[in-house]
Amino acid sequence: MSDSTTTIADLKQFMADFVARRDWRRFHAPKNLSMSLAIEAAELMEHFQWISPEESRRVSDNPDRLAAVGDELADVLCYALAMTNELGLDLSTAIRRKIAKNELKYPVEEYRGRYGPEDVRD
Amino acid sequence: MSDSTTTIADLKQFMADFVARRDWRRFHAPKNLSMSLAIEAAELMEHFQWISPEESRRVSDNPDRLAAVGDELADVLCYALAMTNELGLDLSTAIRRKIAKNELKYPVEEYRGRYGPEDVRD
Amino acid sequence: MSDSTTTIADLKQFMADFVARRDWRRFHAPKNLSMSLAIEAAELMEHFQWISPEESRRVSDNPDRLAAVGDELADVLCYALAMTNELGLDLSTAIRRKIAKNELKYPVEEYRGRYGPEDVRD
Amino acid sequence: MSDSTTTIADLKQFMADFVARRDWRRFHAPKNLSMSLAIEAAELMEHFQWISPEESRRVSDNPDRLAAVGDELADVLCYALAMTNELGLDLSTAIRRKIAKNELKYPVEEYRGRYGPEDVRD
Repeated sequence: MSDSTTTIADLKQFMADFVARRDWRRFHAPKNLSMSLAIEAAELMEHFQWISPEESRRVSDNPDRLAAVGDELADVLCYALAMTNELGLDLSTAIRRKIAKNELKYPVEEYRGRYGPEDVRD
Repeated sequence: MSDSTTTIADLKQFMADFVARRDWRRFHAPKNLSMSLAIEAAELMEHFQWISPEESRRVSDNPDRLAAVGDELADVLCYALAMTNELGLDLSTAIRRKIAKNELKYPVEEYRGRYGPEDVRD
Repeated sequence: MSDSTTTIADLKQFMADFVARRDWRRFHAPKNLSMSLAIEAAELMEHFQWISPEESRRVSDNPDRLAAVGDELADVLCYALAMTNELGLDLSTAIRRKIAKNELKYPVEEYRGRYGPEDVRD
Repeated sequence: MSDSTTTIADLKQFMADFVARRDWRRFHAPKNLSMSLAIEAAELMEHFQWISPEESRRVSDNPDRLAAVGDELADVLCYALAMTNELGLDLSTAIRRKIAKNELKYPVEEYRGRYGPEDVRD
């Protein structure tokens, strides 16, 4: 099983089963899950806190560090999936809709190579 | 297209194309993306900041609020996908591996209905 | 020494000395410090992640938990002081200026007992 | 009034008055305030998200950007003060105690110029 054969629904079910077996939906109010997601996002940041952006690009060269970062990213995803389950959202639809909005917000001609109006590097 | 027919690889490609068209990989050092992910996680929290956990469970009853929350969750996912792309990770493998670890860390018998050792409600 | 006799300048100096002895200003780019601050804020949230707002009000009844929460809040403050030092800001001026802005943004008549326009409880 | 003449107690009182006039203590459960603090920390990060650590050191050269960053830092502090008020903490004591712990955790000889064991630059 890999990203090319795993659907979002597969992962949602995987997470729902993990939660159900522990009777944890009682804790999974979206308010609480939003905190959990932010906490895991912060743990992911810890790996990059003191290194430069350039050094952070080389993290994937080190299998141990990559695995540690992958674990934190997985935690972020697990809570995102749990929240998706609680809210009854179709995540792929939400992502496609948001990217379509961002296509309009960040027109290619205006933003190519620039992250925003204040970025005057080219 | 929905969660049951969309693979992780589909979403990764969708995001990679969005980024490539804008030549934004230059900004997508994992360090920067970890900040972006945490920033979007905070924007998601904003929707739940002042309401109770119980009220947060009813957000999905309101289509407008649900759409707004879905947009923020999609932003979190987009940056998670961008980081996955930069790191060259297989996300479904990382998630399965992390959930397997959590199965061992939180045995069902010990954690059913409890979030941790300090939770003495049963 | 207590809050009534300690000035902001005292704490800024206290933190500056701690940093200088370790030659850590090399790491204290505001970008990095903003990540550190967010990471410590997340560690503070961990204490409240799964409990209700009401339960969180009773944390101060338990001296051990209060001390643990106080430690996390202190970490947040330390990084805020470090950033203040790096930026050369007068923190008390910044706080007074921001509260003055908020006085205008949240007029008492309109916001008494309400956190925002969507809060219709009274 | 400046950092050298303003005590922590002054700022705590300043914030307590702002909150009391709006009857906002009803919202200020520590759980909620921990979310607010993390949200403001994320807004502070937004200013540094796409720039390099070196560029972030030059933010203080630009008065407009410095003022904007100062506003976000002030927001972080305001919620930290509000939480201090709710918890009944003496903040200067908590900070001194935490820095004393960190003095032991990060001995000067071992950590001078290094942020951690994995930092092998000297």
